[in-house]
Amino acid sequence: MTNQKEDRILLAHGSGGGLSEHLINEIIRPYINNPDMGHDDAAVLSLNGQRLAFTADSYVVSPLFFAGGDIGRLAVCGTVNDLSTAGAIPQYLSLSFIIEEGLPITDFKAILQSIKDSAVEANVHIVTGDTKVVGKGAADGIFINTSGIGIVPQGINPTAQNIKAGDQIILSGTVGDHGITIMSLRNELGFGGTLKSDVAPLNHMVEAALKVCPYMSAMRDPTRGGLTAALNEFSQACGLKIIIDEQSVLVNDAVAGACSMLGFDPLYVANEGKMLFVCPPNRVDDVLQSVKSSKYGTQATVIGEITNEKGVSVSVRTHLRALRRLDVIYGELLPRIC
Amino acid sequence: MTNQKEDRILLAHGSGGGLSEHLINEIIRPYINNPDMGHDDAAVLSLNGQRLAFTADSYVVSPLFFAGGDIGRLAVCGTVNDLSTAGAIPQYLSLSFIIEEGLPITDFKAILQSIKDSAVEANVHIVTGDTKVVGKGAADGIFINTSGIGIVPQGINPTAQNIKAGDQIILSGTVGDHGITIMSLRNELGFGGTLKSDVAPLNHMVEAALKVCPYMSAMRDPTRGGLTAALNEFSQACGLKIIIDEQSVLVNDAVAGACSMLGFDPLYVANEGKMLFVCPPNRVDDVLQSVKSSKYGTQATVIGEITNEKGVSVSVRTHLRALRRLDVIYGELLPRIC
Repeated sequence: MTNQKEDRILLAHGSGGGLSEHLINEIIRPYINNPDMGHDDAAVLSLNGQRLAFTADSYVVSPLFFAGGDIGRLAVCGTVNDLSTAGAIPQYLSLSFIIEEGLPITDFKAILQSIKDSAVEANVHIVTGDTKVVGKGAADGIFINTSGIGIVPQGINPTAQNIKAGDQIILSGTVGDHGITIMSLRNELGFGGTLKSDVAPLNHMVEAALKVCPYMSAMRDPTRGGLTAALNEFSQACGLKIIIDEQSVLVNDAVAGACSMLGFDPLYVANEGKMLFVCPPNRVDDVLQSVKSSKYGTQATVIGEITNEKGVSVSVRTHLRALRRLDVIYGELLPRIC
Repeated sequence: MTNQKEDRILLAHGSGGGLSEHLINEIIRPYINNPDMGHDDAAVLSLNGQRLAFTADSYVVSPLFFAGGDIGRLAVCGTVNDLSTAGAIPQYLSLSFIIEEGLPITDFKAILQSIKDSAVEANVHIVTGDTKVVGKGAADGIFINTSGIGIVPQGINPTAQNIKAGDQIILSGTVGDHGITIMSLRNELGFGGTLKSDVAPLNHMVEAALKVCPYMSAMRDPTRGGLTAALNEFSQACGLKIIIDEQSVLVNDAVAGACSMLGFDPLYVANEGKMLFVCPPNRVDDVLQSVKSSKYGTQATVIGEITNEKGVSVSVRTHLRALRRLDVIYGELLPRIC
């Protein structure tokens, strides 16, 4: 770290890449000296014998509305999915708005409608909330924070630390749809026609997968930093190298086209409706079948495995059978995609 | 409501006054059709027989640092106090940052230190969180959202609906300190010297008061909209008129001076370290003594009572024994005080 990086917060500090990691681990964590503060997307707490998952996220996506969803759907689904990665059944959400003065109330109502529809779909209840309004120019349209509580059933304990050599990795569908949709809109690149965010609540998919595999090693929704960031977190947590197979990772044609024109790698682009499942090899067929029969998992594939080689690395085997390292990028790929 | 008001979000929609009520009850609530969504500051939920309080708030105060505290202390104390009003013992907090690109990291570290100190004082644990960075001009320095979970002990159920005729109202100290401190700083009015925010965690005070009065009718921390907004919420919830005694409401000299110069009524100005207790008359002496012996309640007084007259109104008896109505103001007193 140079002094310059220590000086001011940069956009890249929020990208989900290496600088984000630095911000969280080197700057924030020393002040939150707390053994309960884990490295997973949701904390699992024990309250009088009842295990609860608890998580919170702010949503600052720009633009507010995009093909396939809007900031409201994102705010419900993102938090529902984070609870799901802990094996929890999401129950209750809080909903906090920071609104910029001047937001058209018709826009606000469209966002509220989307929140309502997504909450009904995910079967979660919004029970508390808060609204702040800031002056013109002090925010950008609207920011939403949702926090959530879920119940973790007995015996369920998926966490990246549980990952073992030989575990198989299932991905529930295509990569890059959300990030590339947002980027295309922001830059008015005109790829609009067929691009569509994948934002969706995945709790029903996860619940079904845990029924056939209660001893799921870990789950993660590959959002900021994409598939690469999520897999690197897995490798760091378990200390084993990971290899995935390029041809098993599906990319929609429109996303692949946009990525190739823009020089982006879809393995680094954010998703908002995909789940990674890491499970023992003897359960992989059942989990895959369960995910494929759920609404948002029809294109699920086994994308790779946890090797028995110690170390922290993620590699992709190309169609020419070469191994290419997928390192966490240090700086900014695309700000404000969620 | 005129069409113009329906058109766009105004600063006054976030003020805690009548327009805030309109925004929440007429615009947001229809989309959150949920019987669990109460009118208190925290929701109380039943999870497998365990009663939990759950609340969330965003903090957008400007400036970030002020005499007596900063946005970090505010973010911890505000959520701790909201949990306390439900009779809960605060346990866990989430902590979400939305940071404007360019925030000096020394400022961020000062805020983190303050969060840590306040969390230690309140004996709560920060267990999950999130950090987003937005571009220059898309936020104002830093916004913080905290959500919190607390355990509500058996038999404890303070809620505005429980308020009964004859109940006594205790206020834990002076009014107006926080709001006037912020306003003075924002307008560079030069009252600076003796003004100081009262921001403080009140959970230990509340816990002690509930020990001597488990059947407390209701509690509320009079933040946005001040004492007047909190008492009007009580009157609306119980359907009984409320009368308070002007001379029993304490105002620090510096606050009184600033209010009189600026034409503000301290009964409408926000507090961040005060609690209102509503209790049966036979418990008032014990509650008052308990509050007075706590760190932030030494100046507590009985300020009034719930009358047996049906209706929604709050009045203050002046030192000339006249009754003056304290109506909720419709628009904006002071934006971004918390």
